[in-house]
Formats: sequence, structure tokens, C-alpha cells
Amino acid sequence: MNILIINGPNLNFLGKREPEIYGSNTLEDINKLLEKESALLSKDLNLEFFQSNSEGELVSKIQEAFGKYDGIIINPAAYTHTSVAIRDALLSTGIPTVEVHLSNIFKREEFRHKSYVSGVSVGVVSGFGINSYVLGLRGIFETIKSL
Amino acid sequence: MNILIINGPNLNFLGKREPEIYGSNTLEDINKLLEKESALLSKDLNLEFFQSNSEGELVSKIQEAFGKYDGIIINPAAYTHTSVAIRDALLSTGIPTVEVHLSNIFKREEFRHKSYVSGVSVGVVSGFGINSYVLGLRGIFETIKSL
Amino acid sequence: MNILIINGPNLNFLGKREPEIYGSNTLEDINKLLEKESALLSKDLNLEFFQSNSEGELVSKIQEAFGKYDGIIINPAAYTHTSVAIRDALLSTGIPTVEVHLSNIFKREEFRHKSYVSGVSVGVVSGFGINSYVLGLRGIFETIKSL
Amino acid sequence: MNILIINGPNLNFLGKREPEIYGSNTLEDINKLLEKESALLSKDLNLEFFQSNSEGELVSKIQEAFGKYDGIIINPAAYTHTSVAIRDALLSTGIPTVEVHLSNIFKREEFRHKSYVSGVSVGVVSGFGINSYVLGLRGIFETIKSL
Amino acid sequence: MNILIINGPNLNFLGKREPEIYGSNTLEDINKLLEKESALLSKDLNLEFFQSNSEGELVSKIQEAFGKYDGIIINPAAYTHTSVAIRDALLSTGIPTVEVHLSNIFKREEFRHKSYVSGVSVGVVSGFGINSYVLGLRGIFETIKSL
Amino acid sequence: MNILIINGPNLNFLGKREPEIYGSNTLEDINKLLEKESALLSKDLNLEFFQSNSEGELVSKIQEAFGKYDGIIINPAAYTHTSVAIRDALLSTGIPTVEVHLSNIFKREEFRHKSYVSGVSVGVVSGFGINSYVLGLRGIFETIKSL
Amino acid sequence: MNILIINGPNLNFLGKREPEIYGSNTLEDINKLLEKESALLSKDLNLEFFQSNSEGELVSKIQEAFGKYDGIIINPAAYTHTSVAIRDALLSTGIPTVEVHLSNIFKREEFRHKSYVSGVSVGVVSGFGINSYVLGLRGIFETIKSL
Amino acid sequence: MNILIINGPNLNFLGKREPEIYGSNTLEDINKLLEKESALLSKDLNLEFFQSNSEGELVSKIQEAFGKYDGIIINPAAYTHTSVAIRDALLSTGIPTVEVHLSNIFKREEFRHKSYVSGVSVGVVSGFGINSYVLGLRGIFETIKSL
Amino acid sequence: MNILIINGPNLNFLGKREPEIYGSNTLEDINKLLEKESALLSKDLNLEFFQSNSEGELVSKIQEAFGKYDGIIINPAAYTHTSVAIRDALLSTGIPTVEVHLSNIFKREEFRHKSYVSGVSVGVVSGFGINSYVLGLRGIFETIKSL
Amino acid sequence: MNILIINGPNLNFLGKREPEIYGSNTLEDINKLLEKESALLSKDLNLEFFQSNSEGELVSKIQEAFGKYDGIIINPAAYTHTSVAIRDALLSTGIPTVEVHLSNIFKREEFRHKSYVSGVSVGVVSGFGINSYVLGLRGIFETIKSL
Amino acid sequence: MNILIINGPNLNFLGKREPEIYGSNTLEDINKLLEKESALLSKDLNLEFFQSNSEGELVSKIQEAFGKYDGIIINPAAYTHTSVAIRDALLSTGIPTVEVHLSNIFKREEFRHKSYVSGVSVGVVSGFGINSYVLGLRGIFETIKSL
Amino acid sequence: MNILIINGPNLNFLGKREPEIYGSNTLEDINKLLEKESALLSKDLNLEFFQSNSEGELVSKIQEAFGKYDGIIINPAAYTHTSVAIRDALLSTGIPTVEVHLSNIFKREEFRHKSYVSGVSVGVVSGFGINSYVLGLRGIFETIKSL
Repeated sequence: MNILIINGPNLNFLGKREPEIYGSNTLEDINKLLEKESALLSKDLNLEFFQSNSEGELVSKIQEAFGKYDGIIINPAAYTHTSVAIRDALLSTGIPTVEVHLSNIFKREEFRHKSYVSGVSVGVVSGFGINSYVLGLRGIFETIKSL
Repeated sequence: MNILIINGPNLNFLGKREPEIYGSNTLEDINKLLEKESALLSKDLNLEFFQSNSEGELVSKIQEAFGKYDGIIINPAAYTHTSVAIRDALLSTGIPTVEVHLSNIFKREEFRHKSYVSGVSVGVVSGFGINSYVLGLRGIFETIKSL
Repeated sequence: MNILIINGPNLNFLGKREPEIYGSNTLEDINKLLEKESALLSKDLNLEFFQSNSEGELVSKIQEAFGKYDGIIINPAAYTHTSVAIRDALLSTGIPTVEVHLSNIFKREEFRHKSYVSGVSVGVVSGFGINSYVLGLRGIFETIKSL
Repeated sequence: MNILIINGPNLNFLGKREPEIYGSNTLEDINKLLEKESALLSKDLNLEFFQSNSEGELVSKIQEAFGKYDGIIINPAAYTHTSVAIRDALLSTGIPTVEVHLSNIFKREEFRHKSYVSGVSVGVVSGFGINSYVLGLRGIFETIKSL
Repeated sequence: MNILIINGPNLNFLGKREPEIYGSNTLEDINKLLEKESALLSKDLNLEFFQSNSEGELVSKIQEAFGKYDGIIINPAAYTHTSVAIRDALLSTGIPTVEVHLSNIFKREEFRHKSYVSGVSVGVVSGFGINSYVLGLRGIFETIKSL
Repeated sequence: MNILIINGPNLNFLGKREPEIYGSNTLEDINKLLEKESALLSKDLNLEFFQSNSEGELVSKIQEAFGKYDGIIINPAAYTHTSVAIRDALLSTGIPTVEVHLSNIFKREEFRHKSYVSGVSVGVVSGFGINSYVLGLRGIFETIKSL
Repeated sequence: MNILIINGPNLNFLGKREPEIYGSNTLEDINKLLEKESALLSKDLNLEFFQSNSEGELVSKIQEAFGKYDGIIINPAAYTHTSVAIRDALLSTGIPTVEVHLSNIFKREEFRHKSYVSGVSVGVVSGFGINSYVLGLRGIFETIKSL
Repeated sequence: MNILIINGPNLNFLGKREPEIYGSNTLEDINKLLEKESALLSKDLNLEFFQSNSEGELVSKIQEAFGKYDGIIINPAAYTHTSVAIRDALLSTGIPTVEVHLSNIFKREEFRHKSYVSGVSVGVVSGFGINSYVLGLRGIFETIKSL
Repeated sequence: MNILIINGPNLNFLGKREPEIYGSNTLEDINKLLEKESALLSKDLNLEFFQSNSEGELVSKIQEAFGKYDGIIINPAAYTHTSVAIRDALLSTGIPTVEVHLSNIFKREEFRHKSYVSGVSVGVVSGFGINSYVLGLRGIFETIKSL
Repeated sequence: MNILIINGPNLNFLGKREPEIYGSNTLEDINKLLEKESALLSKDLNLEFFQSNSEGELVSKIQEAFGKYDGIIINPAAYTHTSVAIRDALLSTGIPTVEVHLSNIFKREEFRHKSYVSGVSVGVVSGFGINSYVLGLRGIFETIKSL
Repeated sequence: MNILIINGPNLNFLGKREPEIYGSNTLEDINKLLEKESALLSKDLNLEFFQSNSEGELVSKIQEAFGKYDGIIINPAAYTHTSVAIRDALLSTGIPTVEVHLSNIFKREEFRHKSYVSGVSVGVVSGFGINSYVLGLRGIFETIKSL
Repeated sequence: MNILIINGPNLNFLGKREPEIYGSNTLEDINKLLEKESALLSKDLNLEFFQSNSEGELVSKIQEAFGKYDGIIINPAAYTHTSVAIRDALLSTGIPTVEVHLSNIFKREEFRHKSYVSGVSVGVVSGFGINSYVLGLRGIFETIKSL
């Protein structure tokens, strides 16, 4: 079972600045955590990681996943609220997808309450910090197994 | 660590009707699954279950949780979209809460996209069927441990 | 053929106060009228009556109807405009339902023009006073016969 | 007692096309059903039928009803949602009117949920197929008798 | 100078019913009043009158006015709020037009506050009863003279 | 019969600047035109003129009109769209009022389509340039005579 | 003179948790304060107190007040913004009612700015903490005396 | 293959007025252009033309097309934005339809951006002047061939 | 303790016109009532009264209150719904303020339901007629004492 | 005559997946079809093709077209609804542009009904599948010829 | 070159209260800073300063500027969001105007994001504290020079 | 002091096309103007320039600025109104930023009145043509100096 973990704009910046405020976890730390969790779930579970600040590259990566991956975990970050293109890419590949967010987006500005991605996802996990990814991994794993 | 799992209106009806359509899982099955998951997480984790169709009883149960529980998992079902009273109860007890939904509410009618509960929860998990509860339990467990 | 007639909040108060203004018909009078009409329609038609001011009790009663009643006539009164829970209960039992209103709700305040129940009902009758129930009974009777 | 039954645009097309899909009832069948029901209600009840695809002809017919008819049953069809002129015609004649719809308009597109006619009608019946007319006839009959 | 006075739906019904409520002035009385006023303004002023309940006939009449009339006075009645077709007809003939209303439409229902005709008219007169026509005639007369 | 003509903000500036663009009519010219028209209508008709850029002074002037004037003609200019205070002043004196505008406000920005004054006026005249005042005078004159 | 003081959801929780934050006043303290104030106003003034987290019980209690109480003071708390049923109950009993709130609801979330209860109340008092009740009592007392 | 070309209100006026501004093409010119294009596409392609300013006549014509035409090209003009009746007529006949507009309606007033017809059409062509009809003909021709 | 009572536009007109309709209480009567109430509360309580129809003068008066008054009672009347300037003045002086209204503004037109002042006030009292001022005085008195 | 055909995000994926569902036409097939159509229209017509998933690359390509191409055919796909940048690029080059869509966007989700590109295009063609491109080519060809 | 600097309501209060919070700069300090900057820009640059809390006085001052000033710098403060009258005054004098704000109004309440003045200004500067005026002066200076 | 000047989509096209219409200033001219202005402000002020049509590249450049630049001047052009990603990038680096626009965006289409960037900027300058950059530079310079 192959799973692609996609991170959107500014997530490459995690933990880079003022760790006393934003926490010291970097995107690399999240990836390592997911590798560890993955090993617990199944030895046949392979993860690949991808991050980009570009909407177009995210679309292209989703397309490339077709035929190669069984599931996608995506944190579309800012593009959650503005990208119909990412929605369409997910829709056209038809790969089961889980949307994750570090923060609880419903506690933030009004414009962050709307997601173009939720409507084409299997499920959504938000608000658990780096644990959102871990829960999302488990969620997509169980979903794919039950297909 | 004590955790209260609260289910809102109509969830007592799960699996009772036309199992070939709605699945054969009942609320009792979910509870058993959670007990099993709980045992895996920690032997000091105690779960209590509560379901009601009445908004007022749900409010009262949340109040009673104060001083007795370390965390709440709530599936407010239909009250998600209409109950300020449940929001206020959660707010006033201050107990860390995770909101869960069986279905992905963002794929359903427009009026189900708004939640009064999300804004006072630690995090939200929706769309994974009965697995939403399992992920929610793990989420609240990690959240409480890290406090 | 068994039919459950459900009345929502404040309908127990009908005819109790200032009969010269609100009319002298009580809910009991409506029930008697329905019994009489029922006898005309078919001798195999049984009616049961239920009223509650509590949204939760209305939800529970609808659930209990499953497997016991062939049709429901409901006047959700104030809950018409605010209760997703009653909508969900009707949806999950799948019993054919007719929504009735004493007054023409489209002649009243803006917030009474929206109904959460209409979208899950077979049909709607409003504005004929106590006759709305009689027409509703005939409507549900014909609907069930033609299934 | 004289009652005018008015049908709006496209209702002349009922049952004309693909009967296996839309049912084989034509407007003529509805009219016959109403004549039969009328005979049951009272031998002094006279019905007249009118259908037009033209908003202006519908307005003129409503005006002509003044002084000749005791009640109107109208299915304004598509004009329900767009015609202030029909509303004004009903308002100015002051004849008690019942609005009927074959389908439950609240289950259809958003723009069909608003009616310019409901606010000037005695009552509304929708969703019972051809039975909506029968219930509407009984409703207007009882309304006129009680004046 | 030739002026066409156009009246929309239901205005043929003026004064026909319950004169103690709606006043006893008929559309014919308005026309006579306008003839009298016209004689005072100029002996070269010719008026023609037209009324229809049909949007299409109103559109056609406006088109026919092209090349024959110097000005139009229109009371679009209910079509004020719903007819883009009348707006387009006035726009395409390019004849100076004055919109008049018997009642003050801003004191009535919200949906009567919007006019598709005002934006293509020289000016608007509303609320003066039958005097709205007299003021409108004088307004269009002065407007044409000053061209 | 005494009539007060009230002009709101910036109307004192009429004709003062670039007459080739805005026309050379000043507020004084409008007043003279009204005096001339007044003489034609009745020798017992007295006009008083008032202009202010201050919402408060306009409110005070309207109050002072109570018991002294039989009618008011008001061009509230910019305050048309923003002043509840002028609306309340007109409402509390109860003097019949006609609202006039030089331009057709429905051809201008969206925010100029809403008037707080129309709802408390007898009638509205807009779009006839300085003639709007003349028509408004005749309208208020006829209105008062018919009381 | 008998007055019923009704408190809605979560008000039973006042002062129970973290007194250093929420103040140490409980609902019982408010009731005692009202008893003291009542004694100052009149020795014939009797107060009864009721609190419930259930919308249905609040509706039923309001109905029971009919014929027994001269006035109602209600803090509908969260139901202020969502309950048409409480509005209808107050409307149908016709007992003069004063709406009170501890906090100034206009300083809180947008959804708390709308009240279904204000439109059927004599008056509203909000923002004075426990003093809102005292002012409300004096307000209802004076209102009833002046009837 | 038979195709009906339907033109809505004011299109009979094309080219009739001020040719230097609106172009000198009349509706007859468009029809001739379509005949010429038709001959190029297939010798078995027959066109019929219909224009009316009346919504009702347009509805009736669409109904008559049932069983006689294989496709419809419609320029609903002003009724595009206001007619649910035309939408329903097209829906009930089920004939493949192409919506065309001379101008690009998205460059005009906001109220012209909404079309009731687009949602029941195969496709839409707008903005190419008289060429919109030619493209529409080719579009409907290819669509019918591929059925 | 010094308290400034500020009244907005048209309140100087209270009781001046048709006392049989609007009541015979003038603003002077309200002031006297407040003086009497003030004497009951404390002999050290000094009241000053101010009324203006001008938004600018109200703003200036609020500024002058800085350093001289301990509290403000304001009935902003029509400016309640339109004045950001009064809001800003209250905000910048920082003096505790109570907003009062004679009528229950929630029973009136939609545009009166929004207040720019409530969000910067300690509390709001509306609907008790002249008693609103008395309750407001007691409210501000208790608020200042408890600071 | 040189024409640039631009395709937005996900259109490179056409026909790549599940041909039995989405059809087997790829973007290359569309390009070939356009080449064939181009040859029929004129031997001097040159086409260039460009596709990108990146909004920025699409903007840059449009800029590069300036001075090199006489017309643009663009299917902005998902960026239709979200890209002001593409609108601005088209606007600043001033090259005549035709917007095309495979599907009828008015039959899809509400957010797909708004286009930032339509307002700066000559015309729009949508809903004809791959034929939309052919019609668009013919439309831009005729448009450029007639300049 | 003569420039008028206009300040709206509450700006006379700057620096008057709690300097440790709001800063110690008064309006006089801003004026001095502008005089100093003016001297740097050109010795022929004359500044005049005006402040008022009254909308009417601000309107009158803008009118008086006609023919005397080459440019206006205005901080309309609270009237930014509510005054159509100031907008109209600026529009009718036609003097180039720059709008300035001390704070960044886009970081404040929603109702402060709309400006009636921006649409009739050359440019806008907001958020730089007292430096907004300095930048605005330089902006208007360069604008006038380039005319 | 190091300042990064960032320009968004289409600004590379400035002055490239039809200089008689759009002016002959290119982005290079703006950069030179800024260098000149920079020299006047301080010899220690270093500027770097960046332009991209790609949202992702703009995000990445903003991230790279962290730790290297003391301030940012950004003209986000079309992305002003659609990019949450640029907002988030600015927010996460925490570098003081000034938003500039060549044109006054409040005089253009409605959708250009909303900015995602203003809410995270120190200040905004718009409408002064190339001078907006000069004013923005001075604004950010003074802001950084005063930190």
C-alpha cells in the first residue's frame, strides 16, 4: 500500500522561525513521525512526501499519483480556501484522499471556514497539531483496507 | 484518565434499520470498538458512554462532566448545526473536546456545513464512518497527555 | 393501516386561552375530528396521537414509529423552522410523512417561510385551520394505499 | 357554489410524453377526478377549468372570476416563483384561493422554494400528485362554507 | 407631439370592485383626466392609451411606438419588478419614457422596491394616486420640449 | 396654504461651478421657478425655502415646521440614503411630505437606490431636473387640497 | 402581584466553576438578590424561580404561567438565538415579559446579536451582570402597575 | 433532421432602428445566414423559425416541437433571466437545446449573468453577434448526430 | 459622582405633539423623573442633561465629558443605527456608558435592530418607555460604584 | 493569422483515466481536431497549443502572445472561477479571446457559475464537449476576419 | 500651491487622553509636522488646517475650498464609512483629494473596510500613524505638479 | 537596512504595450526611481527587486526574505484579491510590509475592493501611479526606523 503525503504553501516554513512561539516541529519531524506510525500499522505501507508552494505543482503531483498511490493525505494549507484546481485534480484521479490541518480552521478567520477540498475527500481531520497527520494516516489506512 | 463519549439525536437508531443500506454497526458496536481501542492506548483510560435525543439532557450531561472527566468526544449529530446551548455548555466546563462525525458533513446539504461546536473544540474528525470515533479517541488521548 | 399524528410545541395550548380570539378548538377537538374522518376513510385505519413541547421527545417518538406505523402526520410548529433533528429522525425511519400547519406560514414572519421538514415529507398542507389535519389525513391515506 | 380551477404553463402537457416516466394522467384526467370528487361534496358545486401558458391570460381569467366564482384553485406552475402579476390579480379580486402543486416544491431547486402566490392564498397543498387537486378542492369547499 | 400612455396588468380592474375601498376612479377616468390636462398644456399634444395584462403585448406596443410617438408614460404595475423584456423594449426604441405608479411602491412589500424600468426612464413619479399620471404627463411634456 | 421647501447637502452649490457641465441653474433659480408655479396654482399658497448641509439643522427645521406648514417638499440629497434622523423627524411631525430628486437616482450607484425618506413620504418625484421640484409642488398642492 | 423568573440553559452552572474567573455569584445568589429587591418594591410581590436546560421544559413552564403570573422575567441564554418555540410560548400566553442578559450580547459573536425573544418582550436589559435581573424586576413591576 | 430556431422578445426589432448603431442585420438576415449554413452542413437539415415577444407563446411553441423537431436553438433574450416557464417547457419536451446570445451577457448588468435556460441546455454560445447562431447550429447538429 | 444624560435627534420633540397619541411626557418630565430617582440613590449624585439634533454636537459633548463625568446615559435615537462617530467618541473617552431606548427597537423596522453604540456600552435598556432612563440610571450608578 | 490555444489545469489529464467513463479523447485528440478544422477554414491559419497546471505560467504565456498572435482560445478550467491574474493578463495584451468549456458549467456546482474570464472575452462557448473548441475556433476566426 | 488639510470627528481629541496608551501626538503636532514637510517640498506650498466633528461643517468647508485650493488631504475618520454627503461635496468641487488614515482600517471592524470617500479620491494612504499625513502630502503635491 | 520590493503578476508587462495609453514607465523605471529615492533617504538603505507571475514563487520569495530583509514593499496585483497563501507567507515571516497599488483599487470592479494582504500589512498606499512605490518606500523606511 502506497500513500502520498502532500503539503501546501508555507508548510516548508514550519518550525523555522521563533520556535518558542510556533513550536520546534519542522515538516521533517512530521514526516519522521509518520514513518514511525506507518511501521506500526503495516510493514507493507510505503509513504512518499511532497511539499510545494505552487498550486500548479500540487496539481501536477496529484495527477502523477494516479496509478501509483492507493491514498493521499493532503494539507492544502492556504489553497484549501481558494483552489478549485486542486479539487479538480483530486476528483479526476479518484484516489481516496484525507484532508488534514494542524490548527482547527473553524477557530480562525471566516474565510478559512470554507474548504474546496473537503467535498471531494473521504474525511477531514483538523486541530490536533502534528497529530492530525497521524490520525489522518490511520484514517486513510483503514479506509483503503476496507475498500 | 476519564473520557466521556456523547452521542446526539438519532444515533441510538444506528444499524437498527435496513442494515443492507446503513450498515449493521450499532452504537453499541461503536462503543465496543472504542473500549478495545482504549485498552490498546492505556490501561488507565476509562470510557463512559451517553446518548440522548434531547438537547437539554446533552447540556446537563456536559455540565456533570465537570470535575469528573478529562476529555469529551462528542458527535452532536443534528444539533451540530443548531445548538448554541451545547456550545455554551462545552465552553463553560472547559473540558478538552473532540467533535466527530460518521459522514463527511461537507458532502451533504449546505446547512450541515456550519458547526456551532467546532469553534469550541480542540479538533474535528469527520467522514471515516465508525473509525471517526477511534481517531477521535486517539486524538483526545494525545491532547490530554500533552497538557 | 396505522397512522401516527404528532404535534409539536405549544399545540397543547390550542383553545385554552381567550377562545374568542384563537377559536375554541382544542387539540382534543382536532383529534376527535380526525377519528371521525378516519372512520369515513376505512375501518382498518388506526390513529395514535402524540404531542410534546420537547424536540428530543418528538425525535424519540418518530423513531419508535419505525415498524409500527405506515404513515406520519406531523405539525412540527415552531420546530418546523429550527429542527434538523426532527428532519433526521423522519429521514432515518423512512416512514411516509405529511407536514401540516394550521395557519398559512407564508403569511407570517420571514423566518417561518423556511421548513427543515418539507424536504423529507411526501407533501405539505398549510393554512386551512383544523381542516389542514383532515386534508393531511386523506393525503397520507391515499399515498400509503398507492404504494 | 362555483369554483374555478386554473392551471398555469406546461400543465397542458401532462401525460402527453413518456407516460412510463411522468405517469399517464393528463390534465383532463385531473379534471374528471375533480368532477367526481365535486359530486361527492355537494350537488350544488360547479367547477370550471382553465389552462394557459400565458401569464397575461391567467391574470385576465382571474379578473373575470370576480363576481362569478366563490373560490379559486390555482396551480401557477412556473409562474409561482416569478409572477407578481398573478399575485396582484388574486389580491384585487379578493376571491378565496387555494394554491396546489403536483410535486413537493421544497424538494426541488432553491428557486422553486419561493412563491409569490402563497402570501395571498387561504392555504397551500403540495406534493400529493393529482391528489393535491382533490385535497385543494375539499379545502376550498370547507373554507367557503365556513365564511 | 404624440404621447403613448401604457398601463400594465390589473390596471384595467381599477375602480371596478368595492369602490368604497379602492376609490371609484377607473382607468377611463384617468384617461379623461389626462386628456383634460393635455388640452391645458398644448393643443398639439395627442395622447393614445393602451392597457394589457400580457407582458408580450406590452413589449410589442412599445416597439410599435418607435417612429410614431415622442414620449411614453408607463405604469408597468406588477411587471415593474419582474420584466427585463419591457426594459429592453424601452431601451431599444429609445423613446423618452416616464414611469408612474399610483401608490408609493416604497411603502409596500420589499420585492416592490426594485424596478427594472427606472434605470431606462427619464424620471419616476410615484405615490400621488391618479395625480401621478398628471404629473408624469407634465414631466414628459417638458422633457420633450427641452430636447 | 403654507409649504416648506427643504434642500439637503451640496444643493447650495448648484450652478456655482462649471456651468457648461452642470447647467447654470442655481438653487435660487429653482426657488424663483417654484414661486412662479405657486402663483399659477393659488394666490393663497406661500412658500418658504431652507437649505442646510447639516443633518441636525435639517431635523430641527422639520420640527419647527410643525403647526406652521401644511406640506413639505424635501430633496434630502446625500442624506436620502443615510439619515434615519430625517426620517424620524418627518414621521414625528406628521406633515404630508413629497421627496424630490434632480437626477434619476436609480441610474446611479447602487447605494443611491435605497431611500430612508420614501417610506414616510406621500410620493416621490425623481429625474426631471429642476422640473422635479415643480412637479413635486403640484403633487403636494393637490394632496393637501384633497385631505 | 406574581412574577416568574425563568433561566435557560447553563445558567444553573453560574459560579460553580473557577470563581476567580467567572465571579462567585451563583443562580441562588441572584435569586436572593431578587427576593431582597422584591421586598423593597412591594410586600405583595411574589417571585417564583425556574431553571432548565431543556427547551421543551421552558416552553411548558411558560404555558403553566398562564393565569398564575402577572409577569415573566426570562434569561433565555443560548435559546435566545435559536428558539422559535419559546417565542411562540410567550406569544400565546400573552403575559408581559422582560428579557434579561448578564453580558452585553452585542459585544459577543455575531450569532448572539439576533434574539427571537426580544420581538415579543416588553423590554430588554443586557450587560449589567447580576444587576440586569434587578433592573428587569423593577422594569416588569412598573410595567404591570401601569397596565 | 429538423431544427427549430426560437427567438424571444425584442429580437424582431433587430436592425429596424438606427442601423449605424445597432448594425443593419435583421432577424431575417440571421435566418438566411442559417439557411445557407444549414445547406453546407447537410441537405437533410430542415430549419423552422419562430419569434415571439410573449412568454406564453414561446412556451407553447416549445411544446409543439415535441415529436416534430430533433433540436432547438433558442435565444430567450430578456426571458433568459426571468422565465422558469421556458425552462420547464424545454425540460418537459426533452429535445436537445442550444442557448445562444448575440452579446456577451457577462459583460452587461449583473442581473443578466443568471440564466434559467443554461441549466437545461446542451450548451451555450454567447458574444459572437449573428455568428452565435451559426456556431449554435453547428453545435446542435453535431450533438444530434452523435446521439 | 457626576453623570451626563445625552439625548439624540427628535427627542426634544417628545410630548410636544398630539399628547393623546404619543403620551404627554416631555424630555423635561424625563429629566425631572431622573432628578427624583437620583436623589433616592445618593445625595452625591449630580446629573447634567444635554440634547441635540446634530451628530457633531453630540460627539463634541461626549468629548467634553472626559475628566468631568463618571458615567454617561445616552439615547442616541436615530443615530443609534447610523453613527460611527458617536461610537468612536464614546470609545475614545472611555467613560462607562449605558444605552437606553424608549421603545423596544427590536419590534420596529429591520434597520433599527442594528446599533453602533451597543458594542461600546456597558449595557443596554430598551422598551420601558420613560422608565428605561430610570433603569439606565440605576444601572450606571451600580456599575460605577463597583469599579 | 496565428491563434494560440491555451488549456488550464487538469486538461492534460483528459482521456488518461477510465476512458469508459470520461471518454477516450485526450488533449492531443482535441489539438488534432483543431488542426483539421483549421485547414478547412484557411490555409493561412496557424495554431499553437499550450497547457499548464500553473496559473503563473498561463499568465506568462498570455503575455508572450502579445505581438505574435491574432487571437486566443482559452479553456481556463478551474482557474475560470478563481483567477484575477489570468483576467488581467488577457486585459493587458488586448488580444481577442474566446473562452471555451467542455462541460456546461451552469449545470455544475454554484461556484462554477461565475467566471473572471467571460467579462474580458469576445464570446463564450460551453457544453459541447470537444466540439466547444471547434466552435470556438470558428468563432475567433470570424471575429478576427471582421476586425 | 494651496492645500487644505481636513480632519473629521474625534481627531481633535488625539493625544488628549492617556498619552501612554494612545501616544502623545496631538492634531497640532501633526499640523506642525506637515508644515515642516511642506517647507522641504516647496517654498510656494501653503497649508490650511480644518477640523470638525460635524458632517455638515465638513461639507461646507469642502465647498469653500472650490477656487481657493489646489488639493485636499482628508482624514474623514468615522464619516469615512457613513457619509455620502462628504463624497458628494468632494465630487462636486472636483479638487484632487487624498484620503489618509492613522490606523490601517483593514485591520479593524468589518464596517470600517468600506469607504465612501476612496472612490472619489486620487489615492489612499492608511496605517502609517502620523506619517500617513506626510506621505499623503507628498502624494498630493506630486499629483498636482503633474497635472 | 535591507528592503525587498516584490511585484506580482502582469507588472512585468508595464509600459511594454501601447505606451501612449498605459504610459511609458516600465517596472525597470519604477525600480530606478526607487533607487534614487533610496539614496535620498539613507546611504545604508539597500533595495532588492523581485517580480513573478507565479503565486508559489512569490510565496517562496517572501519566505526567503526571513532573516535577510528588514521590510517588504509588495504590489500583489491580481493576487491581492485571491491569495491566502501570500497572506500566510507574510504572516509567518513577520517582516513589516507595505502594500502598494498603482491605481486606486476602490475605483475599479467590486471584486478588487477586497484585499487579503491589507490585514497583515503595516499600511497601504494606492492610487498614486509610480509614486505609490516612492511613498511606500518612505513609509516602510520610517516604520522600520521607529521600531
